[in-house]
This record gives sequence, structure tokens and C-alpha cells, in this order.
Amino acid sequence: MHAVIMAGGRGTRFWPRSREKMPKHLLDIVSERTIIQETVDRIKPLIKPDNILIVTGKKHARELIKQLPDIPVQNIIIEPVGRNTAACIGLAAVHIQKKAKDDIMVVLPSDHAIGNPKKYRTVIAAAARAARAKNALVTIGIQPAGPHTGFGYLEGGTSEGRFGAEEVLHVASIREKPDLSLARKFIKSGNFYWNSGMFIWKASTILGEIEQYLPELYSGLMTIRDSLGNAQETQTLSRVYRQLPSISIDYGVMEKAKSVFVIPAEFGWSDVGSWDALWDISKKDEKGNAVRGNAPVILEDTSGALVYSTKKLVALVGVKDLIIVETKDALLICKRGQSQDVKKIVDALEAKKIHQLL
Amino acid sequence: MHAVIMAGGRGTRFWPRSREKMPKHLLDIVSERTIIQETVDRIKPLIKPDNILIVTGKKHARELIKQLPDIPVQNIIIEPVGRNTAACIGLAAVHIQKKAKDDIMVVLPSDHAIGNPKKYRTVIAAAARAARAKNALVTIGIQPAGPHTGFGYLEGGTSEGRFGAEEVLHVASIREKPDLSLARKFIKSGNFYWNSGMFIWKASTILGEIEQYLPELYSGLMTIRDSLGNAQETQTLSRVYRQLPSISIDYGVMEKAKSVFVIPAEFGWSDVGSWDALWDISKKDEKGNAVRGNAPVILEDTSGALVYSTKKLVALVGVKDLIIVETKDALLICKRGQSQDVKKIVDALEAKKIHQLL
Repeated sequence: MHAVIMAGGRGTRFWPRSREKMPKHLLDIVSERTIIQETVDRIKPLIKPDNILIVTGKKHARELIKQLPDIPVQNIIIEPVGRNTAACIGLAAVHIQKKAKDDIMVVLPSDHAIGNPKKYRTVIAAAARAARAKNALVTIGIQPAGPHTGFGYLEGGTSEGRFGAEEVLHVASIREKPDLSLARKFIKSGNFYWNSGMFIWKASTILGEIEQYLPELYSGLMTIRDSLGNAQETQTLSRVYRQLPSISIDYGVMEKAKSVFVIPAEFGWSDVGSWDALWDISKKDEKGNAVRGNAPVILEDTSGALVYSTKKLVALVGVKDLIIVETKDALLICKRGQSQDVKKIVDALEAKKIHQLL
Repeated sequence: MHAVIMAGGRGTRFWPRSREKMPKHLLDIVSERTIIQETVDRIKPLIKPDNILIVTGKKHARELIKQLPDIPVQNIIIEPVGRNTAACIGLAAVHIQKKAKDDIMVVLPSDHAIGNPKKYRTVIAAAARAARAKNALVTIGIQPAGPHTGFGYLEGGTSEGRFGAEEVLHVASIREKPDLSLARKFIKSGNFYWNSGMFIWKASTILGEIEQYLPELYSGLMTIRDSLGNAQETQTLSRVYRQLPSISIDYGVMEKAKSVFVIPAEFGWSDVGSWDALWDISKKDEKGNAVRGNAPVILEDTSGALVYSTKKLVALVGVKDLIIVETKDALLICKRGQSQDVKKIVDALEAKKIHQLL
């Protein structure tokens, strides 16, 4: 089995901690370890580091190598440019095929948090068995906690039976981010799941599907595969990759393919998509205050706060539901529930050309 | 004419900017100049620097000397310990009498802001004329903007006539800080004024009153006066001063004396008593945001804020009525209207023995 961790994100929503050079997955936002370190730690009991690939951009490769000393440097695959998930997964698949044509590949986002890693591994192992047995594209569907409009949804269909303790369903439909009323209908129907962006399949299966539904991408990937290990490898990748179609794996393949399964699962998943999401998964005191970082914090008549500071003492008086993030060069104070607007701050910094804070 | 600026305050209410070593009057909170620099600048057109005395404690003398290069060093009078306003004023009076027995002394708090300095000087000059003509204790009463419970009040009585353009009233009563219902009655009656803590009188007049109403203080002051210029001056002051009664000039003298006048005045006075008071007197944008300090500030869907930062960029998203003060080593975030509770933070720092932030 191989793991492919997709580590291409920008993570502007965690400004001022996340920066162009330091996207969310490289930050110790959720725990003492960075999110990608947690992601690797979590899968390691199933897949040894030699078989863990990380796909990333040039800007972040050095930091990744530093953060992941267990992962062989040649397993850090650098995309010359970002070309969405289909190309990223295809690139990883041809790398895996160089070693083992029919191996299972477990595709994982780099920047999610999982509350119950043991259950997570049980589900992944079941998915791998289903993918191998049925030559299928297997996804993980998260039992939704509510009508969230920030996620795609997977509609569960007929059962394909149990693999281990996990029931595997055919995917009846794949839905992009819905509006609130549609999301409510999904939740009411009871057979919709959040699309976690995790995929389990054989490298040969996904490449076969790409060949069928994205022939242009397939042809580019084959050119890249033929160059692997050659003197022209880097040059070929650089030339071919930027001409690949930029399309998501969901839209390009999953929505069209025949054998697509979903395993409904609950293992404390969070996409950690914003400061609000971080507050959701944080330990809180009896007044709902979550304190992170090592700095002393004094709370006077304060509730529902998320405070992050590493050095400077933070004192709060009479405030409610605030997100406070203090870094070396910037301070963010945001109403809880409005952290999606943090990207407006990043936009404003771009407009004002304050590049050193981006 | 002499001025006596009382500069003894602690100013914990402006934490984290004010500290034990840096009370409010030494800070550039209101303008680019510090509050005591403004106080000196404001009175200088009436009283030359040679005749301006500053009474302060040992801890702040060095910084005062640095901030006030115009004021002769010997005019900085150091109290060995704090002994409330009666002793402070008495000490200044004996210093003035060394130079000129019957001179007017204008007693001024060090830490107030004045919107209209020209009008302020006109009122002081009128008060000096009244004090000289009538051997009276003259105070300045501020036309109250509302039923504030944080100030003492002066009740205006019969008129003593006009001095210049200013009407001078007898003081009918002096009231300590009232509760809200009493403050409302004061405002309704129309003849109550905020006690500004400014006093104008001849040095000989106030010493005469102290002799009559506070004989123990008077006797100590005479011992000190006799030592001025001697080799034993410092020793005598140190020994005698700490035994003086600690009592306010209002309670010890003004409430008992016969000839006490008040000049009702309006010249944009503020005691700058808290971060809230600073917001009140600050320039604001159309959404009521006041930005101070030189750091860039980005406001997104934000209103009613007071932001102070000198270096670090501050970004606010979706917040209302917050006071944000960022210093080198501490960050305060306080609901506007609750800044009187900032002293609870100072108490907490004391309890936790975080001395470096006090």
C-alpha cells in the first residue's frame, strides 16, 4: 500500500499564522505537531514511510523535508505548477506504478484533523480491501454534523456489502457545495455524506479511469512516466505538466466513473477550514474559551474566545466570541462566526502591497 | 504667578501602556506629546518655565526631567512618599514662598486633556485675578456633560461678580463622587459642576487656611520650610514628610474654608480617566473607529473601535466597540464601556506576580 498526501494548499484562511510560504498544513495549529506531521503519524501504522509520497509545490518542499525526516527525500514530489487534483493524483499514480503496478494508493489531504486515528485506520484498511476486490474507486464519506455549505456531498446508494466492519455503499451521486436549503434536504434524507477528499484505489484503476475520461491528461502522464529516471525527467515534467488540464478528480473522474463506492465513517474528522473550525475542535474551559500557544492569558468576564499567542501576554476584558491571533508581525481580532472573512484581510494586504505579511 | 503641577499618579487604568514606572501623564496617549508635556505647553503662555514646579515621586523624576527640558531641574520637587494632595500642595507653597511670599499659585493636575487651551488660559487668568482681589480659594468647575459618577462635584452659589469675562460664584458645597441617582439630581438642578482638581490661590492664602484647618500639617510644613537651602534639607524633608497627615485638599481645607469660589468653565476638559475616555476625545472615522499609533490597521466590518499599535499590523474583522492596545510585551482587548475593569487585570498580574508587566 502507498499513501499520497496532497500538500498544495495556500491556506489564506489561517492568516496571520498561515502565509504564502507557510500554508496551514505546515503549521502546528491543531497540536504541538504540524498538521502534515499529524497526517503522516496517523497513517504510518498502516503504511511505512518509504511508501508515503507527498505532492507539493516548490515553495514548500524545503520546509516539508525539514518537518518529515522519516520520509525519503525522493518521495517528495514537486509539481512545477498547481494543476488541480486530477493531475496531482495522476502524477503520484505514475510514480507508484514505477515501483508496483497494482498497488493500492491511499490519497489523503494534508490538512485535516482526525479525532480518532485508530478508527480512521480501520476505515482506510476496509476501503483498501474493497478497492482491491472490486477494482473500485473508494471514497470516505463523513457522517454530517449539520447542513454545512462549505463541503461537497456524496449520496450513498445500494450496499456493496461489508468489508471488515464497514459497510460499503455505491455512490448514487456526487454533489458540489450546496446552498443552505439543499444542504438541509441532504441532511434530512439521511443518506448524504460530506466528501472528505480521501480516495482509495489501485494505481492501475485510477489511471485506467483517467485514460477513459481525461485522455489528454492521461497522455501527458504517460509522457511523464516514460521520462522517470531519465536525464530529462525534470525538464519533461516541467514542460508537460503546465500543459495538463486543470480539473478536479471529483469533476473529471468520480462523477463519471462506474464503480465508485463510499464508506460512511465517523472518526472525529475536521477539515480545519478556518479559525472557527479550530475553535470547534479545541478544548475549552467552562466559559467556552480556548487558549492556544504558550503565552499567559488573563480572561476577565470573557466567553467563547479562541486566543493564540506564543509570547506576549494577552488580557481580555468583557468580550464575547472573539478570535485573537497574535504573531510576530501581525494581530488578528475577528468575531467568531466570521472567520471566512479573514481572506478579505489577505486581499486587502495584497491590494495595499504589504507583501511581507502575505 | 507660579504653576504647581501635581504628578504623582499611578495610572493603572491605562495598562498595558501605563506601568508603575510610566504612569499616564508620562505617556503620549492623547497626542504626539506626553500629557504632562501638553500640560506644561498649555500653561507656558501664562507662566514662564522658571515659575513652573512639578511635584512628583522618586520613581518618575528622571523621566520627567527628560521630558521637560525647559523646566529647571530644581523645580522638580520630589515627595519622599505620597501623602495626598494637601501635603503636596503645602510643600509646593513653601517652595514658592521662598521666592515670593504672596505670589499666586495655580495648582494643576498633570494628567488632563484640554480641547481649547486659549479659553483655558483665559479662565485661569480670571481665577488668578479673583484669588488676588479676594484672598480666596478659587476652583474651576467644569460644565458637566452628564451625570458622571466618577467625579466630585462643586455646587455653585451666589455670584461674586465677573472677573474679566468669567463669572465667579461662591461654592455652596463640595460633594464627593455621587451615586447615579444623586448625580442625576445634580445635573437637573443646573448649578453643579465637575470638580476639575485645579486650584488658584495665593501661596500665603492656602498656607493660612492649612494653618487654621490642618495645624499638624502646617507645623510639619514650617519645619520643612525652615530647612530649605540648608545642608539638612533632604534629610528633614524625608523625616518630616512621612509623618504628615495624608488628606485631600478638598476634604482637609476646601470643605471648611470660608472664601471658596468656583468659575464655571467649558474648554474641552477631559480627565482622560480610562481607555473609554480616550475614545471619547479621539478623532473617529464615520464608523466610530479611532486609530492611534503608527502601525497599519485594517478594518473589515468594524465599528466603534479604539486601536493603539505602534509597530504590528492590526486587522479587525466583524467586531464592534472594542478597545485594542498592543504594546511590546502585552496585548489588551477590552469591551468599550468596561475599561474601568482594566485595573482587575493589573490586580491579576499582581496576584500572579508577573512583575515585569506592572
